[in-house]
Amino acid sequence: MDFKHLVNTRYSVRSYSSQPVEEEKLMLVLEAACKAPSAVNYQPVKFYVIKSPGKLQEIFGCYHRTWFSTAPVVIVVTGLHSIAWKRGSDGKDHTDIDAAIAIDHLTLQAADLGLGTCWICNFDVEKTSKTLGLSSGEEPIALIPLGYPSDENIPVKKRKRLNEMVEWL
Amino acid sequence: MDFKHLVNTRYSVRSYSSQPVEEEKLMLVLEAACKAPSAVNYQPVKFYVIKSPGKLQEIFGCYHRTWFSTAPVVIVVTGLHSIAWKRGSDGKDHTDIDAAIAIDHLTLQAADLGLGTCWICNFDVEKTSKTLGLSSGEEPIALIPLGYPSDENIPVKKRKRLNEMVEWL
Repeated sequence: MDFKHLVNTRYSVRSYSSQPVEEEKLMLVLEAACKAPSAVNYQPVKFYVIKSPGKLQEIFGCYHRTWFSTAPVVIVVTGLHSIAWKRGSDGKDHTDIDAAIAIDHLTLQAADLGLGTCWICNFDVEKTSKTLGLSSGEEPIALIPLGYPSDENIPVKKRKRLNEMVEWL
Repeated sequence: MDFKHLVNTRYSVRSYSSQPVEEEKLMLVLEAACKAPSAVNYQPVKFYVIKSPGKLQEIFGCYHRTWFSTAPVVIVVTGLHSIAWKRGSDGKDHTDIDAAIAIDHLTLQAADLGLGTCWICNFDVEKTSKTLGLSSGEEPIALIPLGYPSDENIPVKKRKRLNEMVEWL
């Protein structure tokens, strides 16, 4: 589908069917994420693909919503501060930016394949780091459930009007 | 085009033709950016679309590369820290993440329309803020030149291998 249609198609899916995600589709989603651009091409991002029942139970414990535990796959995206580019003039760390680009690629590729995702940022950071055994320089940025939506009603996007967000100079 | 193809098509364009960007395409690019998701849907992002010759000269002075001054349009994307969501548990500010999602949408929509863009993060932050008259809580995140590429050779993406970035659990 063209990109305009894809943007309108993607929404935050908060209910997943039990239908498994095909390996081929999962690989396409990960490949899109890994092809995302990053500052100076440093790629300071990692993806933890959680599919095993035991590990899924652990990650479900990092964000307590009943709907979250319906996801057949959860991808935890982390940022590596030691690798990320820092701007010379003020030291600004670009980890969050690079991780977000990769996640946006991931969620859009999923939507293009008929799969649902949802950005979860309000998770338990300490518990997630412990569950994955992350070192101190590696920060979990988002938990991304992945699977087929069980609710196929795409909600209408509520967004600010263009003239509230854009200035012409 | 399908999203996999779009991801491979987008690249950092560092040479623009003098062909103007059609108003209709510019609007599509901005609409895609404004439809990007954000934490709690707060949309703490603004877009300054610079097209007038005088303002273009000013913004070209914020990043000194000859190729940058070939762009017919520059979009400066800013993040509004006072509006952005901060996580309750640790206060993490999601401005960078939300701005990056919007910019990723913007650059992908541009590529889908045959337009080129490039993420510029190593710009003069102070000068940019002064040029746009930004208040202290509004941070310029990236300068995005927009236009038709004058070089149509899409470079091969150099990325880490999937197994360097992905762990299976």
